[in-house]
Amino acid sequence: MRGLHIGRRAAQFLCSAQQPSLSVCGSTAALPTEPLRAALPTLAAAFQLQTRLVSGSRTTQGFMQGWQQPKPQESVAVDPFSLVREEIETVSERLRRSIMSDIPALERAAEYFFKLGSEGKRLRPSMLLLMASSLSSALPNALFLTVDEAPPNQHPTEQRRRQQRIAEITEMIHVASLLHDDVIDNAATRRGLMSLNAFMGNKIAILAGDFLLARASVTLASLRNTEVIELLSQVIEHLVAGEILQMTSTEDALVSLDHYVQKTFYKTASLMANSCKAIAILGGQPQEVADLSWQFGRHLGLAFQFVDDILDFTSSASTLGKPALNDLKSGIATAPVLFAAEEFPELRPLILRKFKSSSDVQRAQQLVFRSQGIQRTRAMAADHAGMAAKSIQDMPPTDALHALACRQALIDLTAKVLTRTK
Amino acid sequence: MRGLHIGRRAAQFLCSAQQPSLSVCGSTAALPTEPLRAALPTLAAAFQLQTRLVSGSRTTQGFMQGWQQPKPQESVAVDPFSLVREEIETVSERLRRSIMSDIPALERAAEYFFKLGSEGKRLRPSMLLLMASSLSSALPNALFLTVDEAPPNQHPTEQRRRQQRIAEITEMIHVASLLHDDVIDNAATRRGLMSLNAFMGNKIAILAGDFLLARASVTLASLRNTEVIELLSQVIEHLVAGEILQMTSTEDALVSLDHYVQKTFYKTASLMANSCKAIAILGGQPQEVADLSWQFGRHLGLAFQFVDDILDFTSSASTLGKPALNDLKSGIATAPVLFAAEEFPELRPLILRKFKSSSDVQRAQQLVFRSQGIQRTRAMAADHAGMAAKSIQDMPPTDALHALACRQALIDLTAKVLTRTK
Repeated sequence: MRGLHIGRRAAQFLCSAQQPSLSVCGSTAALPTEPLRAALPTLAAAFQLQTRLVSGSRTTQGFMQGWQQPKPQESVAVDPFSLVREEIETVSERLRRSIMSDIPALERAAEYFFKLGSEGKRLRPSMLLLMASSLSSALPNALFLTVDEAPPNQHPTEQRRRQQRIAEITEMIHVASLLHDDVIDNAATRRGLMSLNAFMGNKIAILAGDFLLARASVTLASLRNTEVIELLSQVIEHLVAGEILQMTSTEDALVSLDHYVQKTFYKTASLMANSCKAIAILGGQPQEVADLSWQFGRHLGLAFQFVDDILDFTSSASTLGKPALNDLKSGIATAPVLFAAEEFPELRPLILRKFKSSSDVQRAQQLVFRSQGIQRTRAMAADHAGMAAKSIQDMPPTDALHALACRQALIDLTAKVLTRTK
Repeated sequence: MRGLHIGRRAAQFLCSAQQPSLSVCGSTAALPTEPLRAALPTLAAAFQLQTRLVSGSRTTQGFMQGWQQPKPQESVAVDPFSLVREEIETVSERLRRSIMSDIPALERAAEYFFKLGSEGKRLRPSMLLLMASSLSSALPNALFLTVDEAPPNQHPTEQRRRQQRIAEITEMIHVASLLHDDVIDNAATRRGLMSLNAFMGNKIAILAGDFLLARASVTLASLRNTEVIELLSQVIEHLVAGEILQMTSTEDALVSLDHYVQKTFYKTASLMANSCKAIAILGGQPQEVADLSWQFGRHLGLAFQFVDDILDFTSSASTLGKPALNDLKSGIATAPVLFAAEEFPELRPLILRKFKSSSDVQRAQQLVFRSQGIQRTRAMAADHAGMAAKSIQDMPPTDALHALACRQALIDLTAKVLTRTK
């Protein structure tokens, strides 16, 4: 660990959801020694000053509410993304500018995915920059909150810029996989809009995906860290492997929860696990911290996807931004169906024929709602969210208040993932 | 240079297409001091013994014919690929095995592209392994002529294995781009067979392309050489940029030869240039040799593509393995048309409307044949083939006879590219 340490009681604070008023001991001379809650105005002011948060006062207020009632695993008032919102916006802006200036033909594709307001949940870059700050003894310099205009193939020397590149690469890989998956699945909508393939045709969607993968590879290479390059290259292969597993499963695999979890790791959690680990490595962290980061990303990714699978049953199309029951309609049996099939074996033939016979989708939905499928999936998601939170709690102690705040935000994120409705 | 040097007259021999009987001086004690032609039986025997060439005697005979009548820029009897054929087969076999064992669903796709007999011209891997031997003071150990079964993400420590990986990566990137281009262009045939998208559907073709790109990235990362990783990552971006340039050109660009050459560099020559340079870098060569390798690949790639453009006019569909006049039918104006338009301005509106009106294709073909378009394209290809040969001739001298043989094979390759008929 480089200059990171935390009082034992601060660590306990992070570990305990039941002790709202624990105080931090052993902080450095430069930081307040009062109980953490008392330190919050100072801390919030520091954030306001140094990170120039967008809508600073509202954010700060929410942030403090979060600290007064830290309830990991439950709904929280604070938006965990707020601590890194400005930085995320600069990363998004860099993405937009670089695509639009280099490949004007992809301008509409770039606008489509990266423009303000339609850029999705920004879960991945937020998680990554929070992880970066969680492991840092210093707040990011204000310089790093400006849009980085260095070319993609130029080696960034500053640690924070290198970590921002991981956020950028992760978002590019994620969007590329969405673009190709939508072409493969003939999807008509995405994020509440017409999908890019439906909007601009398969050609542009395939090319835009290829371009993002290529740009991700170039950006990754520019980091000149072979371990990080290996981690994120592996992810691209996992994404393809997951899509192929989904397309070509055997009968046994189609009804197997283990197979489903493995596929979910490949398709969703691997990117989050390996990008988190890359952040730790670029932060100069030792192997055990890199491994905890990986575990955080993996568990959060699995929890996120399991909730996604639940929402496909419980939310309306307008809330989801894509058709409800999309998985069933696409022939995919997710966790709620697989659990339900244990109670209602009649689901098995429907799963095997990929819900293709008339009324299969409706019948499967009914049986899922009559079963414990949703509840058991939610419990599984909560287990993984809990393990994600524990990975943060197990991080080596730190006295840096901003790091503590970001660790708390990551824990809040594990709760937010469980309670999201879209 | 590591232990590579060549007699001045040997260099002259390589430079001169007109002096068939020049002899080599200044060779080392361990190698024959007689004129090079006299040394050939020994050299050939060494190749037969150490590289266990497939159809050794026929190959050796052809190889010697090549030395007796070295006529770069003209048709040559020797097959320049023969010197590395066995090694190429092990590289292809590794590719097949790794795809088929890891992703059985892509087995048919892998078979389709990498099985013996239908693997295309193998221009790129042959060029690369010849380049590797051209720059080496030793023949590759027989150990490296076995199929390498190390996993893709395992770091290869031996120089020759690392160079073989470049051949493998290059072939994967090339095939991935073919797969995606065929989906984008709705191509029905490729290499004389139904295209993979037509045969197995767009889904498998997109996924197989993505998988190959991902596997290429993982293999590339395993080399742990940041300069090489940067070079080949850039290539993937160039391939996409080329395809996008082709799709979305402005009116001025559509009729511009410069734009066409730039697009051709992106789509064809960049991969050959950068992979050649990677071979030199992994061979421990200094910057100037790496740059000559890059130039060789660039010029050979441009010459290759210009000849391809000619063949699209002059060959039959059965010879090409794809429809004749495919470019015109796809709306693409290549060099013969662009040159022809200088003589027949009436071609310009046809180019701009991408030959979409009735009888446009036929009219364009007629005008190309009435013009100097084919001849001027062939002259341009010959210029580039000559510059490719010169890049080899400008390499630092070597006494290693096998390196000289491989340099000659590369020069022969520049001639073969010009005279090919499919």
